[in-house]
Amino acid sequence: MPANTKGDPVPLLKDLIACASVTPAQEGVLDRLETALAALGFAVTRLTFEGDGSYPVGNLFATRGSGGKRLLFAGHTDVVPPGNPDDWTSPPFVPTLRDGRLYGRGAADMKSGVAAFVAAVEAAIADGSADNGTIALAITNDEEADAINGTEKLMAWADAQGHRFDFAIVGEPSATATVGDSIKIGRRGSLNGQIAVTGAQGHVAYPDKANNPLPVVAAIVTALSATPIDEGTEHFPRSNLEVTSIDVGNQTTNVIPARGTIRFNIRFNDLWTPETLGAWIAERIASVDAHGCQVEFSVVGRPSNSFLSPLGGGVEALGAVIEAATGSRPQLSTAGGTSDARFLARYCPVVEFGLPGPSMHKADENVLVRDVEELSVLYARFISAWFGSGKV
Amino acid sequence: MPANTKGDPVPLLKDLIACASVTPAQEGVLDRLETALAALGFAVTRLTFEGDGSYPVGNLFATRGSGGKRLLFAGHTDVVPPGNPDDWTSPPFVPTLRDGRLYGRGAADMKSGVAAFVAAVEAAIADGSADNGTIALAITNDEEADAINGTEKLMAWADAQGHRFDFAIVGEPSATATVGDSIKIGRRGSLNGQIAVTGAQGHVAYPDKANNPLPVVAAIVTALSATPIDEGTEHFPRSNLEVTSIDVGNQTTNVIPARGTIRFNIRFNDLWTPETLGAWIAERIASVDAHGCQVEFSVVGRPSNSFLSPLGGGVEALGAVIEAATGSRPQLSTAGGTSDARFLARYCPVVEFGLPGPSMHKADENVLVRDVEELSVLYARFISAWFGSGKV
Ligand SMILES: [Zn+2]
Ligand SMILES: [Zn+2]
Repeated sequence: MPANTKGDPVPLLKDLIACASVTPAQEGVLDRLETALAALGFAVTRLTFEGDGSYPVGNLFATRGSGGKRLLFAGHTDVVPPGNPDDWTSPPFVPTLRDGRLYGRGAADMKSGVAAFVAAVEAAIADGSADNGTIALAITNDEEADAINGTEKLMAWADAQGHRFDFAIVGEPSATATVGDSIKIGRRGSLNGQIAVTGAQGHVAYPDKANNPLPVVAAIVTALSATPIDEGTEHFPRSNLEVTSIDVGNQTTNVIPARGTIRFNIRFNDLWTPETLGAWIAERIASVDAHGCQVEFSVVGRPSNSFLSPLGGGVEALGAVIEAATGSRPQLSTAGGTSDARFLARYCPVVEFGLPGPSMHKADENVLVRDVEELSVLYARFISAWFGSGKV
Repeated sequence: MPANTKGDPVPLLKDLIACASVTPAQEGVLDRLETALAALGFAVTRLTFEGDGSYPVGNLFATRGSGGKRLLFAGHTDVVPPGNPDDWTSPPFVPTLRDGRLYGRGAADMKSGVAAFVAAVEAAIADGSADNGTIALAITNDEEADAINGTEKLMAWADAQGHRFDFAIVGEPSATATVGDSIKIGRRGSLNGQIAVTGAQGHVAYPDKANNPLPVVAAIVTALSATPIDEGTEHFPRSNLEVTSIDVGNQTTNVIPARGTIRFNIRFNDLWTPETLGAWIAERIASVDAHGCQVEFSVVGRPSNSFLSPLGGGVEALGAVIEAATGSRPQLSTAGGTSDARFLARYCPVVEFGLPGPSMHKADENVLVRDVEELSVLYARFISAWFGSGKV
């Protein structure tokens, strides 16, 4: 596949990597992106959100054109810390080409996705298709950490401003092995729970005067772990519960403790909401003989809902573009951890479509340059195919 | 029951309480005891043991007479801290009489036992029976804390010196409600164990790439807790296992932890040794499907063996003395936590025979003065009955 004659993603990618934008530090990364977008005719708005128990975060919203189909590209410019610099062959914030690969923190996750999309817009402007629709970018500098003052607030702001979208692409690494082999069309929801089991403290020599909560803790862990939540759905694997901690903290060998605490996480598919899952958990707890202990279940933090984007429209068009280029339809995946895509799903159908990311978050993070170029070409062809290549 | 004409335990008891002998501080408590014993013709040896990871501790060994039956009295002069002095009606180290009770830290546990025995010897000297046998005391100033440089080393020292005993009384609170209602003729053993279950850490979204050890932890807790160890024996209740802690310490909600740790204590009867119990635990662990996790069992610290004193001899004689005085045979108990009696059981039959102790270790610790006097009378009558009241 030839690179775009207009639209080389590599210069911008190098500039973005050179900014040590470890969450929430910008180090100029959004300034550099704004410059690139303004040059392509985008109206750029910079927004700092803060509060809700987290640090202030820089965000960027950009929009170009009006009318036609409305495409949103979303992503982040922040990166995880580089770890020990000695583990890197070249310095993590010095973009370095070796053997066809570009090395640097954020190369895979996901400065390459951002640079590939900007270059794709440049190409789509050159071939005229960009002007057949509306293109927006919603970029945050906090996806990797709290994510409290990032994409969620940015999307709420855009919605309040009247911006509407027909389809969104998140440029996170989504490929399994090669560009286009897999796109993510949904995500499982996630719920964190805690169960405290309270009995009565006492001396191990006098168990009749105490009520040990730990056999009840064990029975509840078994009741939660041993029962399949469901059998999966057409596009989702089974919902899954993992007990993540059991804690008592009793250092005294001759004391029966008063309380034990279970913590767990459930990744759940489109059969469930946090509310119906809460009822399932309560039913599992009720199946255990509490032996007089008090059992308190609570949800920790805010659960995220599962979502599944409709399979027609943008998803179908993107699949066709990828098949035309690679010879295969992409796998429509819902696997993996949560991502900012869950915040976009409230507003429009959304897919994650990006590079293979085996090196993300590791030392010597890198991408194949030809993969970045190929991704940029696929983004550009999607704009052309979905917007329509003729002038409106 | 009249008090001994010779042998009033209260003056010595008051003097002992006035010494703030919180482990291992003596504050003169062993000096005062030595003075009382020397006045009765005892040869007194003071020994300080130290090392083995604990602080230096004062101990006292005293012996009087030779030939005849050899009686050992054992106990301690140290006390637990008084806690908040404001919780006390009168200062904890000012012995105070109110309504027939003597208040002060150590009044019940167990300065009254020591004073009652010394007064009993005085009475037995007065009636001539003391001279028909050999009387020894082994007193430590560390029973309440580490107990590393106390009775165990003191008994080993006495044994190495050639001292032999036919019967031992430990003066710890042993009564349930009234003096003589219960004596302790044995103790369960105690074993502390730890089981570490190691799987493979991973992300909750990718459970196939991890191996969560916590369902295995739960299954092992259930296997240990739900299975009776035995049905008890003639003089012992059932052996009992209590899981005392389960700990993971995983604060991260999206991480499957690598390891969970179970800690437990077993109080076991005369059917078991630490070795046979270790095999029982290993068998229980082996009954659980470890799902590829590594399961490591270890004994924590040094287990104590169970013991049961033979029921004839001193036990029978003491029971008869108590029955003659109270109208009822004492209950022969093996209940309760471990005590220094386990260190004496290696050398001779041993019972614990002392006061009711409902206030021990609490604020306003106290004893009924008439209970102390009655205990002293019973100690004296036992000496007379067991040694023989006629002159040898
Ligand atoms: Zn990312
Ligand atoms: Zn005691």
